[in-house]
Amino acid sequence: MAAVRRYLSSIRTDLLAACLEFVGTILFLVLGMGGIQAAAFSTHMEAAVEEAAMPNYPQALNQFASVEQLLYISVSMGFALLASAWLFFRITGGVFNPQVSLALLLSGCISPIRFALFLIAQLGGSIVASYLLRVLTPGPLFVNVGLGPNVTKAQGVFVEAIATSALVFSVQMLAAEKHRSTAIAPIGIGLTLLATHMFAVVYTGAALNSARAFGPAVVSGFAGDHWVYWVGPTIGCLISTTLYSTLKQCVTSSPTNDSDIIAMQS
Amino acid sequence: MAAVRRYLSSIRTDLLAACLEFVGTILFLVLGMGGIQAAAFSTHMEAAVEEAAMPNYPQALNQFASVEQLLYISVSMGFALLASAWLFFRITGGVFNPQVSLALLLSGCISPIRFALFLIAQLGGSIVASYLLRVLTPGPLFVNVGLGPNVTKAQGVFVEAIATSALVFSVQMLAAEKHRSTAIAPIGIGLTLLATHMFAVVYTGAALNSARAFGPAVVSGFAGDHWVYWVGPTIGCLISTTLYSTLKQCVTSSPTNDSDIIAMQS
Amino acid sequence: MAAVRRYLSSIRTDLLAACLEFVGTILFLVLGMGGIQAAAFSTHMEAAVEEAAMPNYPQALNQFASVEQLLYISVSMGFALLASAWLFFRITGGVFNPQVSLALLLSGCISPIRFALFLIAQLGGSIVASYLLRVLTPGPLFVNVGLGPNVTKAQGVFVEAIATSALVFSVQMLAAEKHRSTAIAPIGIGLTLLATHMFAVVYTGAALNSARAFGPAVVSGFAGDHWVYWVGPTIGCLISTTLYSTLKQCVTSSPTNDSDIIAMQS
Amino acid sequence: MAAVRRYLSSIRTDLLAACLEFVGTILFLVLGMGGIQAAAFSTHMEAAVEEAAMPNYPQALNQFASVEQLLYISVSMGFALLASAWLFFRITGGVFNPQVSLALLLSGCISPIRFALFLIAQLGGSIVASYLLRVLTPGPLFVNVGLGPNVTKAQGVFVEAIATSALVFSVQMLAAEKHRSTAIAPIGIGLTLLATHMFAVVYTGAALNSARAFGPAVVSGFAGDHWVYWVGPTIGCLISTTLYSTLKQCVTSSPTNDSDIIAMQS
Repeated sequence: MAAVRRYLSSIRTDLLAACLEFVGTILFLVLGMGGIQAAAFSTHMEAAVEEAAMPNYPQALNQFASVEQLLYISVSMGFALLASAWLFFRITGGVFNPQVSLALLLSGCISPIRFALFLIAQLGGSIVASYLLRVLTPGPLFVNVGLGPNVTKAQGVFVEAIATSALVFSVQMLAAEKHRSTAIAPIGIGLTLLATHMFAVVYTGAALNSARAFGPAVVSGFAGDHWVYWVGPTIGCLISTTLYSTLKQCVTSSPTNDSDIIAMQS
Repeated sequence: MAAVRRYLSSIRTDLLAACLEFVGTILFLVLGMGGIQAAAFSTHMEAAVEEAAMPNYPQALNQFASVEQLLYISVSMGFALLASAWLFFRITGGVFNPQVSLALLLSGCISPIRFALFLIAQLGGSIVASYLLRVLTPGPLFVNVGLGPNVTKAQGVFVEAIATSALVFSVQMLAAEKHRSTAIAPIGIGLTLLATHMFAVVYTGAALNSARAFGPAVVSGFAGDHWVYWVGPTIGCLISTTLYSTLKQCVTSSPTNDSDIIAMQS
Repeated sequence: MAAVRRYLSSIRTDLLAACLEFVGTILFLVLGMGGIQAAAFSTHMEAAVEEAAMPNYPQALNQFASVEQLLYISVSMGFALLASAWLFFRITGGVFNPQVSLALLLSGCISPIRFALFLIAQLGGSIVASYLLRVLTPGPLFVNVGLGPNVTKAQGVFVEAIATSALVFSVQMLAAEKHRSTAIAPIGIGLTLLATHMFAVVYTGAALNSARAFGPAVVSGFAGDHWVYWVGPTIGCLISTTLYSTLKQCVTSSPTNDSDIIAMQS
Repeated sequence: MAAVRRYLSSIRTDLLAACLEFVGTILFLVLGMGGIQAAAFSTHMEAAVEEAAMPNYPQALNQFASVEQLLYISVSMGFALLASAWLFFRITGGVFNPQVSLALLLSGCISPIRFALFLIAQLGGSIVASYLLRVLTPGPLFVNVGLGPNVTKAQGVFVEAIATSALVFSVQMLAAEKHRSTAIAPIGIGLTLLATHMFAVVYTGAALNSARAFGPAVVSGFAGDHWVYWVGPTIGCLISTTLYSTLKQCVTSSPTNDSDIIAMQS
């Protein structure tokens, strides 16, 4: 009886956490993708669209953005994550990202049930955010991700993988590890997303997060390269998790090294 | 007798707080709206004005801004709030926003008298800031807010509502709740305003604050959509307050969940 | 004898502090004004110069800058102060600004001797930084400040005064007052300078600091409006000091209010 | 026997630290230089390239960048260092820079063996990051550094020296010194790199780090001015180390001054 009650209570907590994850993902993506949509909507847009020789993917702004628009997108996404992760950090951890959830599952921080609920919440949140943006702004939605001109699918996969590994590693090092600056981890995680966008956004749109790629595709159509945004970030998650586990093992396997490494904190 | 004295003392404190709120609102809006005015005054302005086919609302820069000007406006408003909230945070809380005051009233943090005094201080501060900008800068004032091209009033109301709910929620989660990073709450609140501007500024001008919309309208004229900036942010305040109350109830109603949720802080 | 020794020791400390102030001012202004010089040197510059109808003040970039250059200048100056104030904060306080020194003198934080030594160090540091920039970069120096087109001298004085009062107030509230976030005061002060630049740079060049205006003028020539950059910031210093003193008096005169105001820290 | 074991254990720790330095350098430079490559790849690029009359150094973007691209580069490099230094800070100190290592060697923080291993790791990491960027992005690599138009080699050396001295000094003051804000030193160091880039990037490309200059040159060719990026940053390291040592001596030589200086922390 007690075991059943405990199980139900744990399910209830998981459901509550997933609800918050759903709301947080909507907030993150309405603000972040809303910035992308805004960058596409400025008066300089029409010229840029005509200039662009990309009739196949009209809905992915990153494919014909100017350097000003790339900066605008990076700042929007970075500070949207910084803000929404900060607001939800003390409650659910502010994940908003299936690949980050996967890393937390692999390192035993969350259970498989919570991972599954979070995945549904994140994909659902991204779809809702995309619909909201389509309804709330005039004109078509421009927040899809797509490979930039002349970027091959293999390049796209590895650009997504490397950038995602940095993002996941920031969650592992700043939030999952407990230390004096854990309280400001959302700042570090958001600014890591900003830094990764500055690199990746022009080549792949910088999803770094399958939910962020999935929602807009549901609303404005899947492109042939959509799988890139599932394979790439997942590889990145595995790279980061491998690095993180190796690191923890090296540090804990030899107590001498441990103190030495801590002494290295210059 | 003692009750009267206590009442008078409390009124005196409320008046002092309202005076500071008045000064702080002037500082916030002179800097933030000053940045908007500056973006309109740069040498590229004339071309942009001629380019724009918006004779009806000549005073709202957001309606014909380039992506560079949108970034400039967002950074100005975000860092103006970050700075002025930080300076006044330890004294009055640095509200500067009727919808944030309303949220504090609804959750019992401030009394109805203080809310009323703050409202007067905020509206007055915004009017003074707008007059200062008109007197201190050459040419007409460009800091009104207005709906962007093809943005319907319903869209405007909900863009304002969603963006305001994020701002109000940031005050509730970062400043009203006490925890280790409360001292740096103004950073989180200012950067949340930055993130919301990146999304909303091109569509509605991103008031997120009826006082910020009201002051410039007093100085350079009310547009037909002015009510949007009272209804939208107030809806946003209600959304955020509902979410915040639900959250507090869920967490406190079940002690088991509470600790569990806190354990989720990854 | 002991008094003489104490006096000499205090002079020695003052001289050491002034030397550091000299080095810190050079660092701040080489980085900050170096960013202005860099913005003027980009390949788009020539067009902007020809476009500009301002033959009288060819050396003040702010007088014909595009909105991108205004952002570049603001970010340069803001983060240059953030960085250099952070580096010198624990040693001399990282003032680099005669008007901030004056505020510290008026509130009794520094002695008149130290104020005088700091003034010499700040003016000298600004001259050295300006010479360094002229020697280290090709072409003429573009880092003078000057009133923007159609900006009257009275407007210039009050724009400088208001912006300087915000900067000085940030030093008084964040660094002079001791509290939990004092250690990160340089972040708040630097970002306040960023916010004030976003407003003031296009109208006056945003000196907010007579030393910052004086050094480049020594190197590339004084304009007829140079006095604006002594009168304006000094008025700003007095505004901020008056506000700060009033505030301290209100809070300490009535202990009841004090606790009440602290309870308002939401 | 024990001595040998201790020696071997210390070598093992050094090797582990060097491996992490290698990984961290790759992360820093893939993100930071990736942002430069992205700025070169935007659709406005072709016009800029044709506009530029610089056939000799086609691979150094900083030599013909617009002010928007300069901002993009500065933000990319600054936040890439902020993020990667934050992630690796608690483990190896997050150096990623031979001149910073040299400063740590000179002040006795690291041993000569560790310096040598770090140098190999940093140069190797930069080469790997450059190859990764060439393989992962379409078109030629644009991340070399080079002297801007009309910038002499002597100017280049001293621009690099001054900017590097600021960066090295930030590591010495924020990370090597222990105090209340040491935990957030990576923020200060990253933002110092941002501030130095705003100044130096248009004149020299702002290497401030011989490894950052060396890697791309191995991949896309050495220019005749490559030595500038070894001599300049090393001079900067010596300037900063001299200043830092003098400062420590002044403060510790006279206990009276010490407390006085600490009392100056306003």
